[in-house]
Formats: sequence, structure tokens, C-alpha cells
Amino acid sequence: MNKYLKVDPWCIIEEGFDGKRQRSSESIFSIGNGKMGQRANFEEQYTGSTLQGTYVAGIYYPDKTKVGWWKNGYPEYFAKVLNAPNITGINVSVNGESLDLATCRIESFRRVLDMKEGTLSRDFIAVLPSGIRVSVSVMRFLSLDNPETGAIRYGITPLDRDCEIIVNPYLDGNVVNEDTNWNEIFWKQLHHEAAGNEGYIIAQTLKTEFDVACGMHNELLLNGETVNAKPVHQSRTGYAEITYSIRLKKNSRLEIIKTFALLSSMNHEKKRLLHDTKQVLKSAVKKGFTAMLNAHREVWSDIWQHSDIVIEGDDEAQQGIRFNIFHLNQTYRGDDPRLNIGPKGFTGEKYGGSTYWDTEAFCIPLFLCTASASVTRNLLLYRYKHLDKAIENAQKLGFKNGAALYPMVTMNGEECHNEWEITFEEIHRNGAIAFAIYNYVRHTGDDKYLIEYGLEVLIAISRFWSQRVNWSGDKMKYVILGVTGPNEYENNVNNNWYTNTLATWTLQYTLETIEMAKQIDPSGYKRLAEKTKFNDVEETARWKDIIAKMYYPYLETEEIFLQQDGYMDKEQITVNQLDSGQKPLNQKWSWDRILRSCFIKQADVLQGIYLFEDRYDTETISRNYDFYESRTVHESSLSPCVHVVLAARLKKMELAYRLYLRTSRLDIDDYNHEVHEGLHITSMAGTYMAIIEGFAGKRVKEGRLVFNPQMPPKWKSFSFKIIFRGSHLKVEVSNNRVVITNESDHSVEVIVYDHDYDIAENSSVEILRNKS
Amino acid sequence: MNKYLKVDPWCIIEEGFDGKRQRSSESIFSIGNGKMGQRANFEEQYTGSTLQGTYVAGIYYPDKTKVGWWKNGYPEYFAKVLNAPNITGINVSVNGESLDLATCRIESFRRVLDMKEGTLSRDFIAVLPSGIRVSVSVMRFLSLDNPETGAIRYGITPLDRDCEIIVNPYLDGNVVNEDTNWNEIFWKQLHHEAAGNEGYIIAQTLKTEFDVACGMHNELLLNGETVNAKPVHQSRTGYAEITYSIRLKKNSRLEIIKTFALLSSMNHEKKRLLHDTKQVLKSAVKKGFTAMLNAHREVWSDIWQHSDIVIEGDDEAQQGIRFNIFHLNQTYRGDDPRLNIGPKGFTGEKYGGSTYWDTEAFCIPLFLCTASASVTRNLLLYRYKHLDKAIENAQKLGFKNGAALYPMVTMNGEECHNEWEITFEEIHRNGAIAFAIYNYVRHTGDDKYLIEYGLEVLIAISRFWSQRVNWSGDKMKYVILGVTGPNEYENNVNNNWYTNTLATWTLQYTLETIEMAKQIDPSGYKRLAEKTKFNDVEETARWKDIIAKMYYPYLETEEIFLQQDGYMDKEQITVNQLDSGQKPLNQKWSWDRILRSCFIKQADVLQGIYLFEDRYDTETISRNYDFYESRTVHESSLSPCVHVVLAARLKKMELAYRLYLRTSRLDIDDYNHEVHEGLHITSMAGTYMAIIEGFAGKRVKEGRLVFNPQMPPKWKSFSFKIIFRGSHLKVEVSNNRVVITNESDHSVEVIVYDHDYDIAENSSVEILRNKS
Repeated sequence: MNKYLKVDPWCIIEEGFDGKRQRSSESIFSIGNGKMGQRANFEEQYTGSTLQGTYVAGIYYPDKTKVGWWKNGYPEYFAKVLNAPNITGINVSVNGESLDLATCRIESFRRVLDMKEGTLSRDFIAVLPSGIRVSVSVMRFLSLDNPETGAIRYGITPLDRDCEIIVNPYLDGNVVNEDTNWNEIFWKQLHHEAAGNEGYIIAQTLKTEFDVACGMHNELLLNGETVNAKPVHQSRTGYAEITYSIRLKKNSRLEIIKTFALLSSMNHEKKRLLHDTKQVLKSAVKKGFTAMLNAHREVWSDIWQHSDIVIEGDDEAQQGIRFNIFHLNQTYRGDDPRLNIGPKGFTGEKYGGSTYWDTEAFCIPLFLCTASASVTRNLLLYRYKHLDKAIENAQKLGFKNGAALYPMVTMNGEECHNEWEITFEEIHRNGAIAFAIYNYVRHTGDDKYLIEYGLEVLIAISRFWSQRVNWSGDKMKYVILGVTGPNEYENNVNNNWYTNTLATWTLQYTLETIEMAKQIDPSGYKRLAEKTKFNDVEETARWKDIIAKMYYPYLETEEIFLQQDGYMDKEQITVNQLDSGQKPLNQKWSWDRILRSCFIKQADVLQGIYLFEDRYDTETISRNYDFYESRTVHESSLSPCVHVVLAARLKKMELAYRLYLRTSRLDIDDYNHEVHEGLHITSMAGTYMAIIEGFAGKRVKEGRLVFNPQMPPKWKSFSFKIIFRGSHLKVEVSNNRVVITNESDHSVEVIVYDHDYDIAENSSVEILRNKS
Repeated sequence: MNKYLKVDPWCIIEEGFDGKRQRSSESIFSIGNGKMGQRANFEEQYTGSTLQGTYVAGIYYPDKTKVGWWKNGYPEYFAKVLNAPNITGINVSVNGESLDLATCRIESFRRVLDMKEGTLSRDFIAVLPSGIRVSVSVMRFLSLDNPETGAIRYGITPLDRDCEIIVNPYLDGNVVNEDTNWNEIFWKQLHHEAAGNEGYIIAQTLKTEFDVACGMHNELLLNGETVNAKPVHQSRTGYAEITYSIRLKKNSRLEIIKTFALLSSMNHEKKRLLHDTKQVLKSAVKKGFTAMLNAHREVWSDIWQHSDIVIEGDDEAQQGIRFNIFHLNQTYRGDDPRLNIGPKGFTGEKYGGSTYWDTEAFCIPLFLCTASASVTRNLLLYRYKHLDKAIENAQKLGFKNGAALYPMVTMNGEECHNEWEITFEEIHRNGAIAFAIYNYVRHTGDDKYLIEYGLEVLIAISRFWSQRVNWSGDKMKYVILGVTGPNEYENNVNNNWYTNTLATWTLQYTLETIEMAKQIDPSGYKRLAEKTKFNDVEETARWKDIIAKMYYPYLETEEIFLQQDGYMDKEQITVNQLDSGQKPLNQKWSWDRILRSCFIKQADVLQGIYLFEDRYDTETISRNYDFYESRTVHESSLSPCVHVVLAARLKKMELAYRLYLRTSRLDIDDYNHEVHEGLHITSMAGTYMAIIEGFAGKRVKEGRLVFNPQMPPKWKSFSFKIIFRGSHLKVEVSNNRVVITNESDHSVEVIVYDHDYDIAENSSVEILRNKS
């Protein structure tokens, strides 16, 4: 853990510069707008250690798969997140000497990520090797108002003497990825030009042939007044640069306003791409830096209006949750069903792909509560559009008859991952996708989506489960062999309780949905049955048989659900018996030792109990929680949030709070010494779940919102807004009371501490806190 | 299967040339002499598809490991078998046109591997594109008499007209490997020279820095008489060539005798390497081609004297077994404990490394019967010398206190393999190494080796088992979790019956050996106990406890040993229910489907019953055999031989013969369409086992040889010699009788069909065949 950054409710603040932390800070201070994003790389040259990163949503490179030993069924490529052309670069030289924080003496340095307004700024005073002292002040943003644009204001002031300043704003397509399997270059360069105050380049990804066009416009101001410095142009393959030279008096301030646009063939015809880029840039320049910034701020203001969680009395927790909400909203805006939420978002290359089951299991619960239903609907449509590829993927593995296995990692619907124990066996992901449909429908009430799109996915997933089970003559039950659960510290196990549970739940939900569809929309159902060649009699009969005769491992002596067959053959040790020098296990132990131990990366059974909580009484939940929590090492960033929700459910608030703090500040405090690779974007959503479903006890039951608020002792209050089936509520929890305000224009029913309340439009109820 | 080559008892014969088969023939016709070996690449230029391969025993390149996803404990490198400098090259041009079988019309072509004499020859008539017709006749060998040398006699005759012939014998160190993880070159070139009729190069492996020196001497004969053609020299980095031009009359024969030497820094000081190479070459040239060849033939004659199996009435079977015995003896000569037997020997690059458990499980049984005890002793010493590295290897995985885990694949004792389910989990290899010590001792009676060397290895392996088991509170037994048995179509299983059985057997044998050592050599034992810090009380007590309380899965309903926990949860289908289009599974099915199916690559339980046959009555063996044979797809080349031995034991001779034929001609008939990659050298030994232990029923019981001969119906007779505890016996099995001749100078006791015979020196017993 690493208490390096300042605690502040709305900002992330770095005071002083430490080159060794630059890669980490580049991750933490990343900015994005859903369409593109970038690490907090410096604008000016930096010769120290840096991971350059600009990323464009949906644009990837299919990097030839690297394996030690090929297994039948492995994919051909791994979709890599691509470092895209650099649009933010502005090189600066002072009296012929390059401004480079790796070679300057730094008198002061302050970097601020303003999460309220969505801006990244940096102020420093540096002494160049020649002794010249300059003060620099930079601010940049990627517009949420027009996400194809962004701007930088870069100001420089010589502090001790007059200087000759040369500034070189540039665009550079000649970029590389650190994460490449075969050291290949991912781009070829199509176009470059520079004229007047503008420059343009177009680069194309190899193999996938996405075109990305970048444009920049530069304006110079001297002490706030426009100056007409003569632009000198240079452009070459993949590169466009403009040079301005100016004699700058001591204490006067030169400002470069670099406005840029980045457009891609995802959204524009290739042959019009240059033209469109010029148009977009022209509009942005016409609007001007201040107006662009204000429009951007307004979007952020609206986002915070719906998604903020205000915590009083605990600035660390406050900063942590806002950091997570901020990054999730930077990464995904929900307006394009071709896009999804990568595990590192726009903050790094690692893990490639864009879509893991994280989206369904962790991100959707956040977007359901904080954004319009269309946002989650687009995330579901993303999978709907990939259904054909999921069916193909299952066929490759030997499944038939329209069975679908969604990929573990994907960009365009094709599987990218290649570890057999994950790719072929971590099949619970299929269940998470089914559950997300259910979760969306129960939260939004959108039965129409369920019948029109969801059911087709459910049938295909149910077909997969139906073929993936087999009858055990030994157990006289259906079993599921050779799987890996969410607990990836067990591989190739038989009868993972979570997977078996999710499989039968999917079958049941699909059957129920079919019944509903038959009643609500018989002709729509008929069309679907024909399209999917669904055998209403035989297939449903088999599903019912599987539901009735599925085997679930159970440990009689402890009265708990057993993670998998044979788990109790392991030596049973608890985490508190582990020497702290042994942790994290994934760094300290060999892989076989991890596999043979009873320690759990993230607890499958608890994940299942979290999803299907209604099925279990408190004693059952408590017994399972105690058993598995004591064996869980939380070495997945997705692990703690589920434990927070269950611990809160069991009124173990101290434990819940401890786990919450760790997960909410995972990246800010760099618990795992890996933030330099990028942020854990998808697991950030788990901390939202931890507060809303954990501390506030939010549930959905029979179409109504339920709350059972509790509060960590340290907090004075916490409050948030929630969107539910078109209603807008505000929930405020303080020491003695809970206030729920209905901000909708219609009354809303809620259940708080097991009591029903019907809250009239634009009014509140105040309820005494239940502290039992 | 592929009946392409002619059936002949002593030769492998290819009639006619098919470029598509060249890579396969290059494998099959490979020659070697234990120190070096080479694929049957053509001497002259060949621009068709070819895998060039010359290999030097013990010389390897540590190729940086390639993995998809790194796991803790993986090794840094994979030792690759190295394609070494080409010593056989002789380019030929006729009237300025290159002789190249890829561009000529071929009128006749015959390639012969003479297994009796160890020579490779080739005779062809080719028409060059210009229409010139030439007859070529080539013969080469790698001397077994002086394994640092070899020679080629290359004769060429123009058939229709006089021609200008240019011959270029050369040495070429600028060679590449097809099997390289990162497309690296493995050699750097140190020296080259050419003068007179001689040329020399020295190349050095990168990283490992082995020096290999090659020398050649060339002599030209015209119609059998020496000619003094003027040599023109060319040498450059890694290359030395001599050019001879000669005007050759129609129907006259030009012969080039290329004598070569290959020496390495394994056996010579680097600074003397060039000098020594020149000396070795000089001696060889002085000896002359014919004398070299005769000396080489004599060694082969001696090998066949001890190791031949003569089969009457079945030329296919005869050719098959001789092919296998021939290649094993070419690959390993048993005089250097630094060397071992690679899975492809000197016939290809694939699988790298040199040592797998194949050596202990399959090759040692052959060498025990056919060669001096020192040969097997050297194979055991190889592992003894690697004990420290095996202890280090175990330490990396978290084991302590001198526990050893021998590597799955190795060159110098370090692990090379990197699939977690194999590297970390296929630990039965440790048991195979222990069993080989026992097998050696029971066959040779060499208790001295056991106490001086073997016991130290046994203690280290026993320590591994003792730590690798854990106590299951659930079963109240010791269990072994997370293993892969010899059946690699199951991974990461619990309580593999074979592994558990081998583990306790090792503990038991180690305990017995300790007791013996204490009695026979108390001071030697004391030294060993001190060296290994062996705790005589605590460690042996734990071992006894494990032996007493080990868990072995058992299937009550079928009364069979169960391959592993949970096996009966699988859908139980037998191989004959499998559609033939589904086989081989490893090509037709996805990996997860293979893992989930009940089909067995090679049967663990039967392997265990084979090793510990004495423990089980015939009914038990029969029940297990029937159950597992029906589920085994034999997709490992190591699988069928064990089934042959057991089938013969159960008097299922028809099945035994069918499996035998397939395995003995696996490579000649290219059953698996992969012979182009090289031969299955180590599994060849299994076919020897199949005849000797299967058909002849050879066992060792209480220090005596046991035979229970049977014969496949098709055969008229079979006979072989066997070396046992210093005695030499000949066994002849014919339709009605078994004759055993004692060729030793002392009497020998044997048991045939359960009767004891004491055979006087140099005399025979004749026993009627037991055909029950």
C-alpha cells in the first residue's frame, strides 16, 4: 500500500515529482470520454520511464496468439488494446534546450485530476540544465460533450530572464505497443499534412484496417492576447508538426491552445474521414477552448447528479468511491452497443480484449442504478449481437444445435483467451450473461427487451448447459465436469457448486421466460422458436429433468455448500494461519502449490449466494460466509465487493468496512504494486455495489426497491441517488435516520427495514435508523 | 497407415522417389552412432521440401521459454535439440547444371537402410533439365567404431555423353532450427579453413558455448583409380568448400570419398579442438574407407549378436522389431553417463530435451536384456548426477528438506517443460526413476550400486512423496491431489491410482533398501545418512504411516482399481462405440471435450498393474484389463506395449499381436502421419518389451529369469538372446517347443512354464510348448 497521493474529496493530487512513480501516475491520472482515452503522459518530451498510451474505443489489433503448447480449440489471435496515435504532444525548447522533466531540476510539481470537472492539470517550476527557470501550467480534457474532440492549454513563463522559446505541437502515428506477442508494429500510415496552424495524420491498423484520423489546431497567446507567430511545418510518414518560435520576456506567459480531433472509421466512411476530421476540428476551434470546456463540465455535472455517492466524515472513502465512479464514466458512456468496458479501460494495454464477464457481474449493477436504462440495454445488445459468434465458438468445442458459449475475453465476439483451464472451462461466464439479462429486467421492468432479444440469448445459453452436463451413473444425478469457477485458484474441477447452480438457474429462468413470451407475445415467440429451431417439447423436457436432478456438492458436517467435489480432501487451513510473508500467494507460491491448497482467490459459493440470496436463510448465509471468508485471500480485485455485501447483510460492519476501504482505494493506494500497468476499471464498479447493496442494503423484490441501510461507524452520513424503473430517488443515511426523497413526478413504493413506504412525487420519507 | 516401403527382414527399402515423402524418408532412413546422428538428407543440393538435421549428442541450445500465460515455477528455457553443422554436403553440377532431385526427371531411385551393417545407400538415375542422364550411387555411414568419424562414397556416371563434372564437398555451420521459439540462430561461427583436400570449421552454440569442430578430407577416384584433380578452395564464415572439376567420359565413374570428423568440447579441450579434429581425421583417412566400414560393420555384428530378435514366418514383424532395435542402438551406446535417449533421437528436432521418463519406463528394460549392465548403470548415473538439480527443482515448487522432483523434460537436470498440468503435476515420473533403480538391481544383482548411488536418489524421491501427500480429514487417509498420470487425457486429478501406488511403493522400497544398507554396508549408510541429513526415526515413521494409510480409489461395482477420483462421473462409452471419424481424438476433438470424456490416452491403471503384477491375481488383472482396454485410444506411442504384455499374460494373443504389429511398425508405416518430424525412438523400446515380456513372458522372480513363451499364430518361430546377471542365454520358441541355451561358462537356473531348470554351461534344455 502506498499513501503517496493527497486525500481530497474531489481531486487526485500529486505533490512533487518522482520519476519512479511516473508510470503509476500516468495510470491514475488517465482521462477519457468513452470514445477515446489516454494515460496522463506529459505533453512535452519526457525521456524517463513512461508508458505512452492513447486508446480509441473499439479499435484493436488481432495479435497472433502466443502459446507454449497448442490445444485444439485455441483461438488464432488475441485482440490487443492498441496504443493509438499521440494527439497530445507539444515539445518545448528553451534557448535551444529541450524541456524534459527527466533532465530538469524540479522546484515544484503538482498534478491534479479534477474528478468533478473531468480535467487533468499540471503546474511545475523546472530548472533546465543550463539554469533557466521556467514555470509551466498545463490543463487538458477529452470532451464528453463532443467525444471526438479535446483540448490542451499549455502555458509557459520564464522566471529569471528573457528566452527564445520554440514550441512544437505534433501528431504522431508512429507508436508502439509494449504488449505485443511478436514485437510487431500494429499501424501503417496513410496520410500526413501540415499547413497554417493545422496538421492531420491518418493511420490504419494492420489486419483489422481501422482508419484513425487525427487533426490539431494550434493558437498562441502572449499574456492572454493572440499572437501571430509564423508557423513552420514539417510532416512526414505518420507525423505532422508545427513549429513556433517566440522571444519571451521574463515573467510573461506564452500559452498554446492545442485543439484536437480524433475520428475513426468505426463512425465515419473511410473516404470522408479526413474531410470529417477537418469539419469536426473546425467546429471545435470555432467554439473555442472555454466554451468547449464549459460544455464538457456540464456533462460531468449531469453525471455526478445521478451517480455521486457523498460520504461525510471519511475523506479517504469519499475520494475512493468518486475515483471509481469517475473512471467508469470516463470509460463507458453507454451510447454505442459495439463498445464495452475493458478491464483496464483507457489506462493501459494489459489484458487486451475489451469484454470479460466483469461487465455483466460488476459493471451492470452500477449502470442500472446511475444511468438511463439504455446504457445497460446497450451492454446487453453487445452480447446479443455476438450471439452468432458465441454459437460458432461452442461449435468449435463440439457443441451442437445452436448452443452458445460466450468467450472469456473478446473484442468482436470471437474468443481471444488461450489457457485451456480458462478458455474452455471457465464457463460460468455464460451464466453471468444470462443473469445480467434477469438483473436488467428486474431493475428496469423492460419485458419487451427480454422477449425481443434476451430470450434468444437465454435459449442458446440453456442449450449449452443442457449439452455441457452429463449424467453420472455413479451419482445418479446430472454433473458438470471439468470446469473452473470464478475462483481461478482451482482448475478443471468437477461439480463447481456455483457453476452447477448458475446452470440450473439459467434453465429455469429460460423456461419461465418462454412461458411469459407465449402469453405476452405469442407471435413474437413463434418467430423466435422458428428462428432458433427450438423444440418446445423435447428441449424443455430435458431442461426440466436437469433442473430436477442436478447434483450440488454439499458438506453435511458443516452444513455448507461445497465449492466442488473433493474440496475437503485438501488440508484445511485458514488465511489467518498463513504467515504474512506467504502473501500474495500468486507471487510467493508455485502454481501447483496454489492449486493444491484450500485457499480461494475469490469465493465461488459466496458469489452464488450473493446472486441468489433470496433462496437462503440468514443462518445458511452465515455458515457459508464464515467458512469461505476464512479461506479467501482476495487475490482477485473482483473478490472483496461481494464479501462486503454479504458481510453487511450479516451485520458484520467492521469487516465490511475494512474490505470496502481496501477495494475502493485499490488503485489510488496501489495495494498490489501494479497500477503502473493501468487501473482495475471493471472492479471499480464493485465498490459501488459494496456501498449501495452492502451498506445501503439495496435489493429489488417483486418490482420494488428495498433498502436496509447501515453505516460504517466512522461515517457521519452517506447519500446517493438511484434510478429505478423510470423513478429517481435520493437516499440519505445519517447516524439516526434514513431519508428517502422521491424526485420523480409520480409516487414510488419502497421497502425500508421491511416496512413499505409509498412516497409521493417530490417528497420524502424519514425513517429512524434500524441499528439492531 | 502407409504401406510405402518394401518389406524386408534386414533392410528398409524405398523404391522410386516421391518428393512429398522426402521429409518422412529423411526420418526413417536416419543414421547415428550414439555420439552424433543425422537425418537422411541428400548429399547434393535438394531444393524440395527437406528438414536438414545433423545432431550431436549432449549439445543443446537453451531456447527462451515461450508461454501464453506465465505461471510461477515455470522454467526459463527449453533445451532444444540443435541442428548442427552439415558435414555430409557434396554439391554436384553437370555441364554447369546443378544436380538436384527436385528439378530432375528421375528414371529410377532406390534408397536402402541396411540395418545389419548400419549403412545408408542411394542409387538413382536422373535426367537433368538439359537432358543429360546420370547414374548416381551413394553410400554413407557414421562409424560405430570411432564415433567421431564417418564417411561417404559418392559415385557419378554420365550415361549418354561425356560431361564436365564439378563436385563441391563442403562443411556448413550456417544452419538453422525449424523448432525455435523466437526465430533465433543458435550458432556463432569461430573458425573456417580449406587447404589441399581438407576443410575445417568450428561453430559454437550461443549461450551454452559448446564448440563443435568439423573436418573433411576428400579423395577422387576415376573408375576406381585415384585422380589428382586440382582442388580449388573457398572458405568463409562458417563454411568451407573444395571444388573439383573433371571431364568425365560417358559410362566412366567418378567417385568422391568424403571422410569426415566431428568433435566437440564435450570431449575435447576447446583450445585443442582443431588440432584433435585434424588428428582424428588424419587417422581415419589413413585407415581408409574400406577399413573404416569393416570396423563399423563389426560393431554392428556384435550388437545384433546380443540384441537381435529373429522372427520366422512374418517379415513385417521381423522388419519392425529390427528397425526399432537398430534405431535404439544408433541413438544410445551407453558409454557416457552425461547422455540420454531423446524422444526423437538423432532424427528430428521436435520435443527438444533429451530425457523423458520414457528412458526409465521403456528403454531400460531393453538395455537390461541386450547390453552390458554398465549401459543401464550409466542411464541411472545420469539421474544420480542430476539429483542436486532435482532437489532445486522441488525447492522452486515449495518442497523442502532434500525432496527431489526430477524434471519432465531435461537436458542437464533442469526442468524444460512448461505446461503446468505436466511440469508440476505429472509427478509419476519420479516413481519411474525409483522403479528403474529396482528394475536394474533385480536384473543385474548390483546391490553395490543400490547402496552407493541408488539409495540417495530413493531417499530424495521418497521425501518428495512424503511432502506431496496430504492428510484428508474427509477420507481419513493420505491423498495425492492435483496430478496428471501417464494418461495425459486427464489433467489435475485427485488420487490417480497409479501415482498413489507408485508413491507408496517407492517409500516401501526405500525403507527396505535402508535396512539392507544398514546390514551390508553400515559405514556407507552412515555417510549417506549424514550427507542427506536423514532423520532415521521421524522420516521413516512418516513413510510407514503413509504406506499404511494411503488412499487408493477403487470401484466396488466392477471390482477394479479406479483411475482417479470421480472417473465414474463421466459418461461411460467404450472405444468401439466411437465413430471412427472421431479418431484420433487429439486431432478431431477440442481439448476440453477430450478432458471430459472417459477415453484414455494410455491406461494408468494397467501401467501400474504391469509394474506390480506380482501383487494381483489373474482375475484382478483380467477385470482391470477389460475395463481399461475398452476405454483406451492408444494415442500415445508408449501405450500399446504395456497392453501387449498384459494381453499376452491373459492369453489374449490375437489382441496382443494386433497391438504389437501396430506399435512395431508405427514409424515404418507412419500410422500417425507425423514421421516427417522424426521417429518415436523411445517408444521403439516398448516393442522389444512386447515380444520379450509379452510373447516370451520374461519376468524376474527372486533373482531368476522366468519365461512363459507363447507365439502369435502367424509366426513359425522366434528367438532372441538375453543377458541376465552376467549370464548369456538364447531363447528359441517354435511351434511345439521352447529351447533355452545357456551360452555362459557357468550353469544358470531358469523357470519356464512354472518349472525350474538348471541349465549347465554351454548346453540347452528343450521344453514342450505349453499351449493352454
